[in-house]
Amino acid sequence: MVDVHHAVYTQTNNIMGTLVSLYALHEEAPDCHLVKLGTMGEYGTPNVDIPEGFFEIEYRGRKDRMMFPRRAGSWYHQSKVHDTNNVEMACRHWGLRCTDIMQGVVYGTRIDAMSSDDRLLTRFDFDQAFGTAINRFCAQAVVGLPLTPFGKGNQKRGFLPLRDSLQCLAIAVDNPPEQGEYRVFNQFQDVYRINELARTVQNVGNEFDLDVTIRHIDNPRLESEDHYYNPDHQHLLDLGYQPTTDMQAELRVVFQDLMKHRTRIETRTHATFPDIRWDGQRYRSDYLEGHEANDATSQ
Amino acid sequence: MVDVHHAVYTQTNNIMGTLVSLYALHEEAPDCHLVKLGTMGEYGTPNVDIPEGFFEIEYRGRKDRMMFPRRAGSWYHQSKVHDTNNVEMACRHWGLRCTDIMQGVVYGTRIDAMSSDDRLLTRFDFDQAFGTAINRFCAQAVVGLPLTPFGKGNQKRGFLPLRDSLQCLAIAVDNPPEQGEYRVFNQFQDVYRINELARTVQNVGNEFDLDVTIRHIDNPRLESEDHYYNPDHQHLLDLGYQPTTDMQAELRVVFQDLMKHRTRIETRTHATFPDIRWDGQRYRSDYLEGHEANDATSQ
Repeated sequence: MVDVHHAVYTQTNNIMGTLVSLYALHEEAPDCHLVKLGTMGEYGTPNVDIPEGFFEIEYRGRKDRMMFPRRAGSWYHQSKVHDTNNVEMACRHWGLRCTDIMQGVVYGTRIDAMSSDDRLLTRFDFDQAFGTAINRFCAQAVVGLPLTPFGKGNQKRGFLPLRDSLQCLAIAVDNPPEQGEYRVFNQFQDVYRINELARTVQNVGNEFDLDVTIRHIDNPRLESEDHYYNPDHQHLLDLGYQPTTDMQAELRVVFQDLMKHRTRIETRTHATFPDIRWDGQRYRSDYLEGHEANDATSQ
Repeated sequence: MVDVHHAVYTQTNNIMGTLVSLYALHEEAPDCHLVKLGTMGEYGTPNVDIPEGFFEIEYRGRKDRMMFPRRAGSWYHQSKVHDTNNVEMACRHWGLRCTDIMQGVVYGTRIDAMSSDDRLLTRFDFDQAFGTAINRFCAQAVVGLPLTPFGKGNQKRGFLPLRDSLQCLAIAVDNPPEQGEYRVFNQFQDVYRINELARTVQNVGNEFDLDVTIRHIDNPRLESEDHYYNPDHQHLLDLGYQPTTDMQAELRVVFQDLMKHRTRIETRTHATFPDIRWDGQRYRSDYLEGHEANDATSQ
């Protein structure tokens, strides 16, 4: 959402990367099981339940099984919708088989297999473009900035810990679809409001003797801040997925990892405030300066 | 559907051309009314009625107005679906206004404004990639080849004459949508089976003393050959569209134009037989040779 150059790069990169991969599979490995990562963000926040990819509809007295309509909210999420449509056609036309994973927001810094080898530590993005709200809140808490939910903070999303995401991908690989099948998994476990995330991060931060405050800021995104949200997520459970349900415990591990790298976060605190508005307008410089001044005060 | 290079070129060209246009409108002319050409092919051939872009659904007891799910059948048609999704988001996020035209198959060689000035004659594509079945049939009839419906020939599509297409575009321009509205018109008048087209072309050809035969050939495409098809097309009629209903009369004009250029078509008769199979397989050379031998015989 930065500008036309970023939009063109993002869509070209994602769509063409997937498209040439589909041709490669078709021509060289047509029996291969493609496991592709999409995102729950493809669906947007419709006022009805969100099934896993497809739904049976009755319309004017006739029936069909159709793709559930997507309503993405950014050029990145649109690129994943375009991928979804291209991959579905490749399965329908060429008999490829694919598990397309509509992944919720992943949080956490570890999986068990990493053990204590710090060389295996993950990336941790907390900026406005690649970061997530929960990562941003954790980073803010660790360096003494207020947590900044966008707008009202009643936006709801589906979440799962990194270790569950890896567990789910392993289940998908171990249980391939039939040849020619395009299969969609909604991969997340629990739905939270952004405000609930902020309060959970605050609680965990306080356990670490951090004085964590919450301050709502103008929403730079274009999204519903009060909405219905009820996506299905049964397919993976049916295949044996065992959810990790305790976000608070998982965040304690995140805090332990982040506290060790606190000084690196401190050098990038500017990244925790958004200056890209999705409506394409620019923030006034005094607005941003005001924010930075406040942040300095609150530290 | 030729190969990966054509697929990447088609999708990059169409999607990025539209995307940069959206940014240009947003930044330089946000009040401008964008009239964009899509295609009825975006919808595919679902087993339910096809509304004009959106439909009200009730799903598990809740309601929403959503994009009608697309089910395109080629990389080209998918590129138009991707455009549709990008344009809809630009209207929703940025308040642009757009009429997105899901155009049926256009046939005909003239509009009234061309008068008798041959410099204004249109392109006439009859090859497998850019041509249409009805154009191919006309070209085949004029040079004495059998008409070649693909497969059973019960595929149904919506059609309108070139002069009606221009009339509809003028109506769209003269009746812009509200600022922020993404409006979809299904632009066609009559639905025909491919077999009906072949018979109509045969009848008109016989009026021109051409001995027109019909020979079904293997379908190189992947498409339903017997299916339900009932798309809405009320929006343009409500705005004053006056349909030209007589395909036979319009085809007489086409034949008059094509007969003048018969020798140019004769040099390209090879273009009337398909050698691109949408399943990605190649035709055996003896199959193609057999076809060409038969064509030579039938001339």
